[in-house]
Amino acid sequence: MSETAAKLVYRFGDGIADGTAEMRDLLGGKGANLAEMCNLGLPVPPGFTVTTEVCTDYYENQQQYPATLGADVEAALEHVGKLVGSGFGEKECPLLVSVRSGSRASLPGMMDSVLNLGLNDETVEGLALRSGDRRFAYDSYRRFIQMYSDVVLGVDHFEFEDILESFKEDNDFSMDTDLSADDWAEVITRYKACVEQALETSFPQDVNEQLWGAIGAVFSSWHNQRAITYRRLHAIPDDWGTAVNIQAMVFGNMGDGSATGVAFTRNPSDGTKELFGEFLVNAQGEDVVAGIRTPQNITERAREAAGSNAPSLERLMPEVFTQFKAIYEKLEGHYRDMQDVEFTIQEGKLWMLQTRAGKRTAKAALKIAVDMASEGLIDERDAVVRVDPASLDQLLHPTLDPDAEREILASGLPASPGAACGEVVFDSDEAEKLSGQGHQVVLVRVETSPEDIHGMHAAQGILTTRGGMTSHAAVVARGMGRPCVSGAGGIDIDYSAETLRAAGVEIKKGDLVTIDGSTGQVMKGRVATIQPELSGDFGILMGWADKVRRLGVRANADTPADAAAAREFGAEGIGLCRTEHMFFDADRILAVRQMILAENEAGRRDALEKILPMQRKDFTELFEIMHGLPVTIRLLDPPLHEFLPHGDDEIEHVANAIGVEPARLKRRVSELQEFNPMLGHRGCRLAITYPEIYEMQARAILEAAIDAGVSTGKPVMPEIMVPLIATKAEFDMIAARIDAMAEKVRKERSADVGYITGTMIELPRAVLKAGEIANSAEFFSFGTNDLTQTAFGISRDDSAKFLAEYTAKGILEVDPFISLDIEGVGELVRIGVERGRETRPDIKLGICGEHGGDPASIAFCEEVELDYVSCSPFRVPIARLAAAQSSIARNERENAAE
Amino acid sequence: MSETAAKLVYRFGDGIADGTAEMRDLLGGKGANLAEMCNLGLPVPPGFTVTTEVCTDYYENQQQYPATLGADVEAALEHVGKLVGSGFGEKECPLLVSVRSGSRASLPGMMDSVLNLGLNDETVEGLALRSGDRRFAYDSYRRFIQMYSDVVLGVDHFEFEDILESFKEDNDFSMDTDLSADDWAEVITRYKACVEQALETSFPQDVNEQLWGAIGAVFSSWHNQRAITYRRLHAIPDDWGTAVNIQAMVFGNMGDGSATGVAFTRNPSDGTKELFGEFLVNAQGEDVVAGIRTPQNITERAREAAGSNAPSLERLMPEVFTQFKAIYEKLEGHYRDMQDVEFTIQEGKLWMLQTRAGKRTAKAALKIAVDMASEGLIDERDAVVRVDPASLDQLLHPTLDPDAEREILASGLPASPGAACGEVVFDSDEAEKLSGQGHQVVLVRVETSPEDIHGMHAAQGILTTRGGMTSHAAVVARGMGRPCVSGAGGIDIDYSAETLRAAGVEIKKGDLVTIDGSTGQVMKGRVATIQPELSGDFGILMGWADKVRRLGVRANADTPADAAAAREFGAEGIGLCRTEHMFFDADRILAVRQMILAENEAGRRDALEKILPMQRKDFTELFEIMHGLPVTIRLLDPPLHEFLPHGDDEIEHVANAIGVEPARLKRRVSELQEFNPMLGHRGCRLAITYPEIYEMQARAILEAAIDAGVSTGKPVMPEIMVPLIATKAEFDMIAARIDAMAEKVRKERSADVGYITGTMIELPRAVLKAGEIANSAEFFSFGTNDLTQTAFGISRDDSAKFLAEYTAKGILEVDPFISLDIEGVGELVRIGVERGRETRPDIKLGICGEHGGDPASIAFCEEVELDYVSCSPFRVPIARLAAAQSSIARNERENAAE
Repeated sequence: MSETAAKLVYRFGDGIADGTAEMRDLLGGKGANLAEMCNLGLPVPPGFTVTTEVCTDYYENQQQYPATLGADVEAALEHVGKLVGSGFGEKECPLLVSVRSGSRASLPGMMDSVLNLGLNDETVEGLALRSGDRRFAYDSYRRFIQMYSDVVLGVDHFEFEDILESFKEDNDFSMDTDLSADDWAEVITRYKACVEQALETSFPQDVNEQLWGAIGAVFSSWHNQRAITYRRLHAIPDDWGTAVNIQAMVFGNMGDGSATGVAFTRNPSDGTKELFGEFLVNAQGEDVVAGIRTPQNITERAREAAGSNAPSLERLMPEVFTQFKAIYEKLEGHYRDMQDVEFTIQEGKLWMLQTRAGKRTAKAALKIAVDMASEGLIDERDAVVRVDPASLDQLLHPTLDPDAEREILASGLPASPGAACGEVVFDSDEAEKLSGQGHQVVLVRVETSPEDIHGMHAAQGILTTRGGMTSHAAVVARGMGRPCVSGAGGIDIDYSAETLRAAGVEIKKGDLVTIDGSTGQVMKGRVATIQPELSGDFGILMGWADKVRRLGVRANADTPADAAAAREFGAEGIGLCRTEHMFFDADRILAVRQMILAENEAGRRDALEKILPMQRKDFTELFEIMHGLPVTIRLLDPPLHEFLPHGDDEIEHVANAIGVEPARLKRRVSELQEFNPMLGHRGCRLAITYPEIYEMQARAILEAAIDAGVSTGKPVMPEIMVPLIATKAEFDMIAARIDAMAEKVRKERSADVGYITGTMIELPRAVLKAGEIANSAEFFSFGTNDLTQTAFGISRDDSAKFLAEYTAKGILEVDPFISLDIEGVGELVRIGVERGRETRPDIKLGICGEHGGDPASIAFCEEVELDYVSCSPFRVPIARLAAAQSSIARNERENAAE
Repeated sequence: MSETAAKLVYRFGDGIADGTAEMRDLLGGKGANLAEMCNLGLPVPPGFTVTTEVCTDYYENQQQYPATLGADVEAALEHVGKLVGSGFGEKECPLLVSVRSGSRASLPGMMDSVLNLGLNDETVEGLALRSGDRRFAYDSYRRFIQMYSDVVLGVDHFEFEDILESFKEDNDFSMDTDLSADDWAEVITRYKACVEQALETSFPQDVNEQLWGAIGAVFSSWHNQRAITYRRLHAIPDDWGTAVNIQAMVFGNMGDGSATGVAFTRNPSDGTKELFGEFLVNAQGEDVVAGIRTPQNITERAREAAGSNAPSLERLMPEVFTQFKAIYEKLEGHYRDMQDVEFTIQEGKLWMLQTRAGKRTAKAALKIAVDMASEGLIDERDAVVRVDPASLDQLLHPTLDPDAEREILASGLPASPGAACGEVVFDSDEAEKLSGQGHQVVLVRVETSPEDIHGMHAAQGILTTRGGMTSHAAVVARGMGRPCVSGAGGIDIDYSAETLRAAGVEIKKGDLVTIDGSTGQVMKGRVATIQPELSGDFGILMGWADKVRRLGVRANADTPADAAAAREFGAEGIGLCRTEHMFFDADRILAVRQMILAENEAGRRDALEKILPMQRKDFTELFEIMHGLPVTIRLLDPPLHEFLPHGDDEIEHVANAIGVEPARLKRRVSELQEFNPMLGHRGCRLAITYPEIYEMQARAILEAAIDAGVSTGKPVMPEIMVPLIATKAEFDMIAARIDAMAEKVRKERSADVGYITGTMIELPRAVLKAGEIANSAEFFSFGTNDLTQTAFGISRDDSAKFLAEYTAKGILEVDPFISLDIEGVGELVRIGVERGRETRPDIKLGICGEHGGDPASIAFCEEVELDYVSCSPFRVPIARLAAAQSSIARNERENAAE
């Protein structure tokens, strides 16, 4: 920039602007929108923007401003003065300005604004004269000194508040309004003394010194620690820089003809198309935010609805209101989105200070997007892009009433969204019993195991004190759609006393607690919740999303109930049916245990023979519900010890039930115990040792496929998935057994048996050998949970203890078990995809880790062109929308590249 | 081959041969050596070799022989007949031949040989006439029928043994020599009936049918299951094929002027340069092997040494002996290696049947290699290549006397080499106590933990029933040089009864057992052992190895004793000093526990303050012993719970000792408990949470470096290694703390503080991000133990249960924790090396996993050009030799490529 004569300063005002909304990179968001409003002919106080390039240049050149900047700023200021009929530093008719930062992306931690700049001991008298309100002038001056000293000079604002407080005490004043102009003048004297003491120099009286001080402070704040950290975390380049906006002040506090307010062009809570906003008469913008006085409604309708006596703007200043209504319609039409605007009325004249896209709830976002598309303001693709997929969670689960009071006991991980309230129980059997008696319960456990499934089903919500986002409790709860808080380490459970302690409070069995699985909070007693309500808009938007997305969306579903929920939410198949949960049903766990305790293959086969008809029934039901949609079934994965009881009492009980010596059962339990079960004798390793287990499962799947094909009239083509493959040899050995079983079933049933066999890619070695494995495997499903565990060497169940610290310290941006670690684990997925496709170009590729329901991860899946993602049933809508947005983004990228 | 007119049959005999020793690929090892002996002018029974290409062609062409093969074989047979004055199938003077397989590599499971082929009901009479010994002729015929029926026709040899047994019973014969010619004729009749019954066709009388049957059988055996499996496991291509050797029979059993024997050109047990061999008068080769008669010595000296009365060959047939002596000298000189030869003397004439490189003990290999180089027979590089590095283990540890009787109780993993015998103890304290009283003990535990270190030190050997090759017991035992068998799952330990049960035997505390850590065997009672003896040859060979190797060799050493051993074995530095073992010393474990139990950072710092001087002393000693050689120190790695006691009694005991409530200690133990500690809160993650731990360690290292630099006069430049890095941010955060501490120490001590900071690369994510990490890290040490665990998703401690099955079923060739999985984990190492070097071309690269002492893995390290390998002190000589061989192999490859 220093070489070319780039424009350093962009002016706006009086219906003309040098910039436009498109110049966000150069002018920052605020500057670009001010220019745009100006170009739209809206009443914007005149001003100018120092570009982001000046900031970049400043830092590249030892913090020197470009040579011509001084002259350009001076000329622009003169121009502004001309437009408003005043002059910067002029005694009689002083021009006052605001100085605000404004970068390309909104960036917390940067200097916000300095108002009333241009006041000094002389110009304050000019302002008094011109406004006819000496008290207003001195109040403005003291505000300026306080603000400037704080953000530019670095004198803490508490110092000024202390001075004001003691002045009020000394004079027995209770409110600021009790102070007269002379009182403020006295306060100002003390303020200036305070500055002089702190800085050993007096408060600047030179208005140019004031201005350049403020510009420098904006630039400096680009490099303060908070801004740097925020940029690093959000991958915002340092060299974007910030712009500085300098704008003539307008005053909403110049008497009863003045006012200031904020408004949304639609209702940000529910999306209703109505002007929604508030204002205060005779006030500055900061007063609205401060919440000292109750703001008034803008429209009559809103006032009536609120039952307020304070007059609306519509009634109080009908002309201004009409003008404002026209402006907000123009703005929304122009920006084609709901706007959040700030305005000031100075002595009856309306000024627009800011416009930007308004924040909104999920419900509002949905309605606004669908409405705007119906109104023709945007098209369907725009509507799809406008809704944050993650926010849909709010629509699918009960949420806490934001106005309800909460006594927070502890915080854990937001493991499964939704709020739930119930009586505390510490035991799954009891949860089931009480629930059967009509009680609402929250199951509280240190951790859950597959033996708790019935209790989790019976409970309103689940709370654990150990385990991460993908612990057993979390995964199962999400699958069931039960709210769950996991890993709430601040809670101490005493099972024998049936109590828990947290935050110094003791909660007994039967006491009420409320958990919020969307935030991880655990609260004492009942906190009011709001039930979800799925509007027609939801279905409409999902329909539009489905039209544009390329990625298939399947669900992880293990039970008929899961499968039904999955279809209801629009899943196009099952991407992961975990068969282990089926082994825990009360009527079959005995046979499973007999199998594990068998001394030899014959004994195991006997026990498996008993399980076969039940497994077949499971699969038949699942296939019938899915009605021809693809179903991927993962063969048994967990280590066998998960199916055995632990603890002496339980062992004794189970041993009696299956008729073996407790000592023998105990020995087997101890034999099967593992140091690191996640890396132990599980997955396909079980089938290498006990091939008969997978043979039984293959038979059950294939026979069920035949049966369901007949009952539904839709042929079923199951996808049989082998877990935890590390070598092609493992896969081949198991696939050969499956093929042999298929041949057997084909002959026995004289039926066509169609199926494909594939594998999870969930170990780094499988990724590297994907090219070889694809010679045999017909599909890959990336198991990104285990892949994340092995790539990072982090157990998801143990990670809660330290991963929070990792994200807090900025070592990791997000928990890699929640959102795929794209540069690490993502590279593994990429390698697996490339090598797999090289061998078998039409190989079916999906993902079935928890990441399948995370929008950022879905965008990555689109980028590497997977065929589908699979996630918990309740996340299917999120995945559908995220997939659609990923498709759109990719098309745009590709079009841009052409 | 079918297209070009390649030579199908290579003849040899009478001092001329078509082939040479170089034609091993075409003629197989046996055929090539027969040709070579012939060319050397040695007396070899004439014959010919059907090439390996015929075999390949046969399988490529639906098992059809090449068209001209029949004629070629016929002509070759005729030529052989001419040389020995007989004819194939001729009644009066029949040519008998042996048919043997012979491939490029020796291949167990293939057809070995058919002798006496050419005999039938007519030719047997001719043989009787010609030999003048009818009994010999009929004995030869029945041997032929039995052998041919077994290996060519597939009639089990037991059938023939049964017939012979019942014939002898019927006739009250006790020995084979009791049978007359007519008796044998009767046995032959029964043999032929047996064949006819089994095959529904009679035993072939046509000698050509016999011959082609045998040739076909050799080819078929190339594709039998055992051969296929062996080839797959040893990466031998199927298309190498096998040759067939057809050779005129000579007979060592034609009376007292005949004999047969085997000999080594040097002593295969100790390498002494002396003719070492045995022979039997009037016998066939199989009789020597069968061991029915006691063979006689070949030389007089050997006979005297053995105190034998049976005359030596030297005495018995002095002329033949002189001729044989000349031949063996010629052979050894020609092949420049110790030879294993087979010979037959037929009626006073010496025939050489085979020569090949002789198998030898490690001791012999070493002596022979050094001697031959001194003799000028080979050069130093040849000598280095001649010794198998893995075999050096035999020289460094006590071994079981091979002649001692053993009652094997169980088998486990060969976790740390060497044999040990002692009284069984089940408790480490007791092991220490008894050892202090002069007992020799073997410590037997289900598994060991760091609290067993003193017991392991005190014991002669360690036996565990759980855990793999890299379990705690295995790693620590190897480091200490203690023999160890781990994961002996067949043993049941009852701690309370202080007994173990295995193979139906109960062993009580105090009973003797012997373990062999080189094979994994566990034996009852005392089995005699042989103590190692390091000869001067060892040092000479190591010196030669050091001259040619490129890779540095360091040791993994944690204690002064380890370090001293490492230097003694020639380590060039320490590649891995694990600091955790230092934390377990009785005088500091209390402070460590206080640190873990501290409620806040200040409490932790207090405890660390107590540990600091002890850590500093550890490092000072280590640096002093290493005397300026590089030392890599790994900062604390294991999860903190490893340092806390388990079990109520122990907890109570410890709680009292450090003055806290047992309940609090128990709670902390339970808080720190992890599902998968291997993937838990360990390594650099500890330092993210508790930075003060690494700060203390960094201070101890740096201060010790200054102190040792002063005391030794050699400046110390410690290499500080951060474990378990997954992201660059972790490394940077920790490196910054180390640098800050260095600055502090520099000021406090006014001394130069030199050090470099690097990281373990032991997680797949670290591999992928190696390029980034190398921006900060000055060295990488590949932690291939953890890398193997995470790449495969297999916990090394839990893998014993199923990995044995994996190798048995051929899914994995070798346990990847023993020898690096080159195609999987190796690719990760390769990626890490490439990316690291791309960022920092001079980055120091090493390996410190258990693989650093494995010859195959070392070859890989040479290939990817690491700077050094690091291994247990006792494996340092192995690594030095393997590294030298890798350098030589690489040079040869590169020269060949030029």
